[in-house]
Amino acid sequence: MNLLSVVRVISVLIIVLSVFMIIPACTAVYYGEYNVAIAFLKTIVFFAAVGGILYKFISNRVKPNLGIKDGFLLVTLSWIAISFIGAIPFYLSGEIKTFTDAFFETASGFTTTGATILEDIEGMAKSALLWRALTHWLGGMGIVVLTVAILPILGIGGLQLVKAEAPGPTVDKLSPRIAETAKILWSIYVGLTLLQTALMMFGGVSFFDAITHAFATMATGGFSTKNASVTGLNSPFVEVVVTIFMFLAGVNFALHFRFITGRFKFLLKDSELRAYVAIFVVSSLLIAANLYDNYYPTLKESLRHAFFQTATILTTTGFASADYEKWPYFSQVILFALMFVGGCTGSTGGGIKVLRIVTLLKQGLNEMKYLLHPRGVFILKISGNAIKKDIVYAISGFFFLYIFTILVVTLIVSFTGEDILTSFTAALATVGNIGPGFGKVGPTENYAFFTNFIKWVLSFAMIAGRLEIYTFLVIFFPYFWKK
Amino acid sequence: MNLLSVVRVISVLIIVLSVFMIIPACTAVYYGEYNVAIAFLKTIVFFAAVGGILYKFISNRVKPNLGIKDGFLLVTLSWIAISFIGAIPFYLSGEIKTFTDAFFETASGFTTTGATILEDIEGMAKSALLWRALTHWLGGMGIVVLTVAILPILGIGGLQLVKAEAPGPTVDKLSPRIAETAKILWSIYVGLTLLQTALMMFGGVSFFDAITHAFATMATGGFSTKNASVTGLNSPFVEVVVTIFMFLAGVNFALHFRFITGRFKFLLKDSELRAYVAIFVVSSLLIAANLYDNYYPTLKESLRHAFFQTATILTTTGFASADYEKWPYFSQVILFALMFVGGCTGSTGGGIKVLRIVTLLKQGLNEMKYLLHPRGVFILKISGNAIKKDIVYAISGFFFLYIFTILVVTLIVSFTGEDILTSFTAALATVGNIGPGFGKVGPTENYAFFTNFIKWVLSFAMIAGRLEIYTFLVIFFPYFWKK
Repeated sequence: MNLLSVVRVISVLIIVLSVFMIIPACTAVYYGEYNVAIAFLKTIVFFAAVGGILYKFISNRVKPNLGIKDGFLLVTLSWIAISFIGAIPFYLSGEIKTFTDAFFETASGFTTTGATILEDIEGMAKSALLWRALTHWLGGMGIVVLTVAILPILGIGGLQLVKAEAPGPTVDKLSPRIAETAKILWSIYVGLTLLQTALMMFGGVSFFDAITHAFATMATGGFSTKNASVTGLNSPFVEVVVTIFMFLAGVNFALHFRFITGRFKFLLKDSELRAYVAIFVVSSLLIAANLYDNYYPTLKESLRHAFFQTATILTTTGFASADYEKWPYFSQVILFALMFVGGCTGSTGGGIKVLRIVTLLKQGLNEMKYLLHPRGVFILKISGNAIKKDIVYAISGFFFLYIFTILVVTLIVSFTGEDILTSFTAALATVGNIGPGFGKVGPTENYAFFTNFIKWVLSFAMIAGRLEIYTFLVIFFPYFWKK
Repeated sequence: MNLLSVVRVISVLIIVLSVFMIIPACTAVYYGEYNVAIAFLKTIVFFAAVGGILYKFISNRVKPNLGIKDGFLLVTLSWIAISFIGAIPFYLSGEIKTFTDAFFETASGFTTTGATILEDIEGMAKSALLWRALTHWLGGMGIVVLTVAILPILGIGGLQLVKAEAPGPTVDKLSPRIAETAKILWSIYVGLTLLQTALMMFGGVSFFDAITHAFATMATGGFSTKNASVTGLNSPFVEVVVTIFMFLAGVNFALHFRFITGRFKFLLKDSELRAYVAIFVVSSLLIAANLYDNYYPTLKESLRHAFFQTATILTTTGFASADYEKWPYFSQVILFALMFVGGCTGSTGGGIKVLRIVTLLKQGLNEMKYLLHPRGVFILKISGNAIKKDIVYAISGFFFLYIFTILVVTLIVSFTGEDILTSFTAALATVGNIGPGFGKVGPTENYAFFTNFIKWVLSFAMIAGRLEIYTFLVIFFPYFWKK
């Protein structure tokens, strides 16, 4: 292992994070929220110094190469470190009363989960709300690069599949080439964020609310600046805009790149995109049909809420346009089932991912052919390419580990006396980086009532889920630390 | 395909079933329940005739060999046919008012599920209750042979693993050799049933209640002759007896054979048995600790209920000794998690099966080693034997299909307006052949309130689950019917 090298990269990350904190610090000054400004300033100075000293101290002694183990350690430690540091201004300024809550909120931000412990969002300082939205956006940036450029190299749970999809130069090792891929993807990410901000402002939303919601949308995060979430913006037009951008944020960013460069052919033959669109449209229409006349008087309203809520759960954003716990149970169960799906690989969406579900379904059909013809050869094709058995194998393994993790988290949550639906969907919504679940963690509720212990467990569940579980879990595996 | 041959075997099955119906018919006469006796008599005469004529008509034209496709078709059609025919006396006698309910109850019996539509069990004719218990017992007999001798040949979801475990002569093809294996297993099954009956009578239970409960226990079925299930027998001693025999019924019958023949070494190194015992003991102790002082005043009572309820859910029996929906949520979630496990392979228990869970967990650990050393070779061992990748592959595929099936059934159930917990656990409890779930299908409730459509769906969910899903599903796959 090359621990020093890992620490060096993290020291750079700490410096970058400190630099980004200048944005909320300035905002705090602008709005006259001086206690928040001071909290950010203290954090910036301290961690810029720590990061700088660490970097200076280490960089001479470091071998440049990062191995596989270093990759896992780096990614996991990064998410933990930024959640820890990002939480400090919330706590120092008194905007969030306990450090546990601050860590939960920040981990929820950087993992683009959107589960919140805030009971009165609108009572927060605007600069703190901006930082909260910014944690989503930065986390989303990290995830796009991670899943498109880094995780495929580490070979997590079948994500090798994504490798072939990556735009720009082929990436083979943790090397500077990642930077080129990252630049392309980030340009798209920034571009879409600005476009959404503009459209929301066109819809009558203030710049502050527009950009914070755009940050939360593009990251499929779900933190809103309103107590009533997107409903609080009081604009059906804006709900439609948010729906469209949630949908876009759930698409593989490599496909956005292909779209922009005019290679539409790839889009049409992309198995994941096709399944994603199909799931989105069919679920929305089923819910709309179920809601119409039953819950909303007009078809238009039913469609709007159905598409919004399907997008928000499928992409694991977690915004609310309605209290779906009051909807008919059929609609609720569709949303519940969507919680097992998630966005596309290479998007900012969490969950199991559409690509894995598609692969497992195709494999299920193939398996039946094998039963009938044990010595036959049946090729599993995704987007027209044959998929190796080992990849399907890794995906199946991932699926089991995912469900197993959710059951373990459910068990821990229930230990504090929460009911099955609350415990199970709190686990599902945190591991899947969704945000809201059902029961006491429904769309109009929050995570404030949990004990501190559970908040820490769920914070790490969010990080584990965001890092495709394996990346996180492997660190705690004794074998990892053997030479 | 060799359809005639399939029909021939089924015609024999129909005759055998008619013969078994003589038992409840005689019981009906004994208790003076003449309308029930007549219903059985009519069914016996009609189906013995149909079976006989079919057999006679077909047997000359039949090629003796059964292929793989025939195997799938035979197994699925058998379970549907016996559920259909077995339901007729319930309906004809008026003991169950609608044929839908009668089919549900009989399918629940033969699949050893134990979900019931009866609202007043004690109001039923005794002969009808005996037949109800007998459907469990016969279904259990079928399952033991199916999973130990037939499914491994068809290679369903990793059950090839069981093949190595089968006692008696090695089975390679659907051949008369199966009969030898079957005889050994059935002797054990009959022996344990008689032993349990004797012990229950020793505990003060009448012969009728003792044998019906023994039928339901050994099949891990769960139909009781009492409205209050096993609690209705009013004997803590009997509850302990039932707990022990539920536990035994959840063990691979091939291991019982080894135990009887003194080969204890095999038992100790059997990975599945070790995991089964560990899950059973740890879950029971956790629940007991959670219940003690909290729900029951004495440790003894807490332990008794904890072990009983763990056994009943883990083995997928579904008897009730307490209303676990009133227990603390932690205990409830443990039971909920156990619903995803099930009994051992080659037992009468349903669910995913302990062997599959163990394999998937070991694979999960191995997968992490592969992540760190992509070119390494890590062997997955079960009971000391290396397991081929293809088998692990099939098991992973099975796990996905299992969860997917449950979500689809949940969706259908919720369509009629049932809440998430009821819909999800009704699906879990029928596909897993458990019986009770949570919410409106909790341990003190029944399935009577569902619409007819849902009762049919759940009946087929029970059959699909009992036949390891693939066996059932493959029939509906267009590819199956191509030449």
